[in-house]
Parts: sequence; structure tokens; C-alpha cells
Amino acid sequence: MTGTDIAGLLDLAGIFVFAVSGALAAVRQRLDVVGVVVLAEMTALGGGIVRDLVIGAVPPAAFTSLGYVLVPPAAAALVFFWHPQVARIMPAVLLFDAAGLGLFCATGTLKALEYGLSPLHAALLGVITAIGGGILRDMMSGQIPAVLYDRELYAVPAMLGAAVVAVATAAGLHGAGVIAGAAVLAFVLRVLAMRYRWRAPLPRGVTGPPPPDPRDLRD
Amino acid sequence: MTGTDIAGLLDLAGIFVFAVSGALAAVRQRLDVVGVVVLAEMTALGGGIVRDLVIGAVPPAAFTSLGYVLVPPAAAALVFFWHPQVARIMPAVLLFDAAGLGLFCATGTLKALEYGLSPLHAALLGVITAIGGGILRDMMSGQIPAVLYDRELYAVPAMLGAAVVAVATAAGLHGAGVIAGAAVLAFVLRVLAMRYRWRAPLPRGVTGPPPPDPRDLRD
Amino acid sequence: MTGTDIAGLLDLAGIFVFAVSGALAAVRQRLDVVGVVVLAEMTALGGGIVRDLVIGAVPPAAFTSLGYVLVPPAAAALVFFWHPQVARIMPAVLLFDAAGLGLFCATGTLKALEYGLSPLHAALLGVITAIGGGILRDMMSGQIPAVLYDRELYAVPAMLGAAVVAVATAAGLHGAGVIAGAAVLAFVLRVLAMRYRWRAPLPRGVTGPPPPDPRDLRD
Repeated sequence: MTGTDIAGLLDLAGIFVFAVSGALAAVRQRLDVVGVVVLAEMTALGGGIVRDLVIGAVPPAAFTSLGYVLVPPAAAALVFFWHPQVARIMPAVLLFDAAGLGLFCATGTLKALEYGLSPLHAALLGVITAIGGGILRDMMSGQIPAVLYDRELYAVPAMLGAAVVAVATAAGLHGAGVIAGAAVLAFVLRVLAMRYRWRAPLPRGVTGPPPPDPRDLRD
Repeated sequence: MTGTDIAGLLDLAGIFVFAVSGALAAVRQRLDVVGVVVLAEMTALGGGIVRDLVIGAVPPAAFTSLGYVLVPPAAAALVFFWHPQVARIMPAVLLFDAAGLGLFCATGTLKALEYGLSPLHAALLGVITAIGGGILRDMMSGQIPAVLYDRELYAVPAMLGAAVVAVATAAGLHGAGVIAGAAVLAFVLRVLAMRYRWRAPLPRGVTGPPPPDPRDLRD
Repeated sequence: MTGTDIAGLLDLAGIFVFAVSGALAAVRQRLDVVGVVVLAEMTALGGGIVRDLVIGAVPPAAFTSLGYVLVPPAAAALVFFWHPQVARIMPAVLLFDAAGLGLFCATGTLKALEYGLSPLHAALLGVITAIGGGILRDMMSGQIPAVLYDRELYAVPAMLGAAVVAVATAAGLHGAGVIAGAAVLAFVLRVLAMRYRWRAPLPRGVTGPPPPDPRDLRD
């Protein structure tokens, strides 16, 4: 396999695991089959669609690539029928999610740079690519986006990975090595943050809430 | 009247009834006049705006057509003053809503095909056109989108109608007959689903919630 | 300073105060540092991003201007460390917010006209520019958008300011005077509405809710 093949497969793996996380959220909220599919699609593709609309890459990749449109329903079907088993391997899912986070912050920043955005704006858009789908997932399932309050280091590793791509490119460094390095950095930071329970700070004087229960708006 | 005239009138009728559904949701949530107008606009135009942004048809039709911008406020005014009467003819409203669903899944798919999307992606975008406005309506009124959990067959008829347009076009069939046929198919399926209470499946082991009460986030 | 300089500074001041309002909402909802920054960004830039996507001005100004991307994090940092002090000068914040509202409804309408939208559609988009960020802020913090139900005259002054720009331009009047006049009109109306507690009407037969408490979806 060439490097491009591997990058393409990693990309679809990231889409897949983000879709799994969306489908699992739908099951937790007791949504029906439509909810499972829609949340899988939104979580996996939402961040990239926003990025592509912003840089003017229309139609967005989600509406031109065959893999992008076929992988989320496959993930949705898996969760629909076997969600107890998927939930049992949650640590592995979280590991893949961290990989998706690392990958998408790096490739999102790169694509934005290729479309002429400044390094700063490209890094911002790389972060949006990585965390946007999860934000839409939570908003559509009636919850405040977890990334905004749960104090886990999730956006911060994405910011660092995006910053590495932006700074390296501004410094004249290009190529797969930069992308891979930034993705691995964000991935490792995310995994370490989970392992050692690193916490994002709260505003002065604010005491955090107890860990949230998944909450159902409907009853 | 020519066929184009009729299509244009049907289109505005669909916009109107979607706007009525948005305005009624606003009344149910005890929103004020601004909420009634905004929800009428979002429900009627949201799906088409997303479709047009995705295919690069900017400004979206909602921002170039006079009818599109005048019809939702008219529907909002009707509901604002006479919502008890409108609620009383709810069965008729639901019938028109089914007609709007059928119409928009078919015309949304067609427009996406005309902008060069593949049949599969065009069908996906046709479904988004048909159900996107309702999803935005529910998200803005503080509820989980009904289409994601209420087990009514709403998205599924739209999927079938969109698929018919996509497959027929891929097979070389064009013209108003295909669009009309697909729209009628989705409409009839939706009406039958309401009549016979067909239900979308739930994920394995999930028992559905009791029918949701409209829920007010504010108190 | 030239008129352009002043306009640019006013613009950044509007961005700043909208960002402060987003960051304060995040503190009220006990979000963490990521939530404070994201809500500051969304509130300040969301309306303009939607406007630019609709008119095809991509990348949106938020992704090309240095000030637009640096000012919201600065506002977020201010609120993160000194939110009790900021909350104490809330009347001043509301005054600046009214100024931002006036400014953005006027400049948003103007930009839409420059991109060829009809006066009616441009005014609609001007209102979206002014109130869109606040709607996104409330949706992301788990609340029904305040502008939809709280009966304060907030959208209505923006509508009038936008209408003045649209009508004046249609009548052949151009220039900074029109923009300034419309912005001041919307600002003054907004301040008077706060001062005299003018109320937007409710649908017939609907009694408004008690003033809402900020509500936390998480517990």
C-alpha cells in the first residue's frame, strides 16, 4: 500500500469511529433507527462539512466521496444490532476516537491551508473539523456539548495538533511527516489526558457540576 | 396553468405548511411573536438552505425568491392570531405536511443531481431538504428532533421518494413524471404510516419512551 | 482617524461585547475553559459566518480577519478571570450589546446588498447577522434562544435598522451616513425598549411564562 492508501484508510477509520460514537449516543438517548443513523452521520461528517463550507470546497467531501457516505450507516447498523457488545469494548472505542481526533485536527488544518487560509485561521478550522461533529451530536441529542463542560482534555490536544501543522507549514515544512507527527502528538496527549485524568480549568469561583447523567429531554 | 406554474404553486404550498408547523411548535412552547416568525422561517426554509449551501447554489433560493420570504411570515401571522382554529384542523395540516415532505424530497434530490452530485449523494441531500427544517425547528425550540425518536415513519418515506428520483435519473428517466411519481409515493407512504401507525424499529434491547410531552426548557 | 478606521474599531468593539455575552453565558452554565472560549467565538462570529456563507463570501470574514479571531479569546480570558466584576458592570455590557446589535444589523444588510441580494432579502440577512450569534450561543448552552421567547424588543430594533438600510439603498441613498443612522436608530430603540420594558406580543391566548431561570441541562 502507498502512503495515500494508508491515509485514506485511516481517514475512513476515523469516520467509522466517530460514527460509532454518534450511534452509541443515540442508543443512550433511546432514539429509533432514524436517530441512530442521523447521529452517526452528523458526528462523523459534521465537522468536515462545516470546514468545507467555510473554505468554499463545495460540494463538501462528504457529498462526493463514496466511503464517507457508506461508512456511517455501516457503523450505525453495527451499533443498532450489537450495541451492548460495542459498549463493552468502550476503552477501545475511546482509543480509536482519540485517533480520529488527532487525524482530523491535522488533516483539517492542512486542507484549510491548501485553500489559502492563514496559519491561525487554518488551525482554528482544524479544531472545528475535529470537534464539530461531536458538538452537533450532543446538540441534536438534547444535551450541552460535552466538550464545553466536561473538563476532559479533548479540544486542547486538537488545538496543539492543529497548531503544529500550522506552524510547521508556516516554517516551510511540508509533507506526510508533519501531518503524521501532529496527529500522533494530539492522539498521545488525548490518551495521556484520559489515563491521568488531566482536567481543563474552570472559570474563577465556579465549582464544576457532578458528572453529568445522560439526560433525556423527552420525559 | 402550465406545469411550471403548478410546480411553483405546490412548492409554495409546501413552504406554507412547513411554516405553519414551525409556528404551531412556537405557540406550544409559548414563544413570543419573534419566536413564531423565526420558527416558521426556519422550518420552511432551513432544509433548502442547507441543501443549497452544500451544492454551492448561493445565495440559496430562500434569499432570492420573493415567495419564499413572504410565505412563512404569512403562515406565522395566521397561526399567531388563529392558532386554536389551526390546531383544530390538525389532520389537514398533517396531510399537507406529508405533501410537503413528498415534494421536497423529490425536488431536493433533483436539484442536487442538476448540480452534479452522484445519485447516492443527491438522494441523501433530498432527504436533508425534506427533514432538515423540522430538525432545526425542534432544536431551536429546545427539544430533541422528533424525527430522531418518535418512531413515526417520516424520514423513511422521504428516503424512498429521494431514492426513486435518484435511481430513475441514473436509469435515464427524466421529467416531471418522475418527480411527481416520487413525490406521490412518499406522500402516500407517509399517510399510510400515519393511518396504520407503522413504527420505525428501536435498537435491540431498547424500549421506547412513553409518548413525549412537549417540553419547555425554561421552567 | 479616518471614517474607515472608526468603522473598523466599532466593528471590533461589537465583536468584543458579543463575545463577552457568550463567555458570561458559559460561566452561568458552569462550563469549563473550552466552553467559555467556544461560546465567546460562536456568539461573536456566528451571525456573520452564516451571512457570509449565504452570500457566498467564502472564506467568511471571521476566517480571514486577524482581529475577528483574536478579539473573542481576549474577551473570553477577561470573563474567565474576572467574571464577577464583568457581571457587576452588566448595564454597561448591555449598552455595548445594543451598540453591537445596531452596528451588525446595518453592516450585515449593507454587505448583503453589495453581494446583489434584493433589499428585502438583504434586510433579512442583516437581522440574521445581528441575532444569529446569540441564537447559537443559547442553543449551544442548552437553552431555548432568549430572543424567541423573552418578549424583550431585541430582534425588532434590528429589523428596523436593517429595513432603513435596505429602503435607503433602494431609494438611491448610500454612504456612511445611512449606515450610521440605521445603527443609531436600532441602538436607541433597543435602549428605550430596555428602559421602558417594552414587550413583544404573545400569540392570542398564550400567557407568558415567568421570567426564565438559566437552566442547566446537565443535572
